[in-house]
Amino acid sequence: MSDFQIEIIGLIAAAFTTIAFVPQVIKISKKRTAKGVSITMYVIMFVGICFWFCYGVLINSISVITANLISGILQLFIIIFALIHRNNN
Amino acid sequence: MSDFQIEIIGLIAAAFTTIAFVPQVIKISKKRTAKGVSITMYVIMFVGICFWFCYGVLINSISVITANLISGILQLFIIIFALIHRNNN
Repeated sequence: MSDFQIEIIGLIAAAFTTIAFVPQVIKISKKRTAKGVSITMYVIMFVGICFWFCYGVLINSISVITANLISGILQLFIIIFALIHRNNN
Repeated sequence: MSDFQIEIIGLIAAAFTTIAFVPQVIKISKKRTAKGVSITMYVIMFVGICFWFCYGVLINSISVITANLISGILQLFIIIFALIHRNNN
């Protein structure tokens, strides 16, 4: 398998795990409540994503870098949304 | 930076993004409701995790393999829990 083909698999993986956060963003923004959403989870995950990003840079993996850059931004949105609407329970 | 040091960063990243799902599992199991939790999100993410696992194997990254093996199992638990308790809204 060529490096290019491997990177395609990585980018498919990245697309799925990144898109995964979109329904949660829509759910929170529609219902204006983050009830049931664990803010702790998103904060811990955000820290992890920062480490993954560094790891991606160090191993030169375009997939790891792209995935964690985009989902890091999405996670930040969820955290901010959840914090703003956490009293709407 | 040695390969060993790089892998340590990857494993720290893996630890954070894996542990991140634990509070959500506890929250769902305690409240016996998955209200606010997007099942769609976890299903899409689970598919992505399967691709990440393959990618990890292909690039020989212990961190990517470990992270996605463990969080894949945790995700499955969340999905099953959420499906069982989704009527408890």
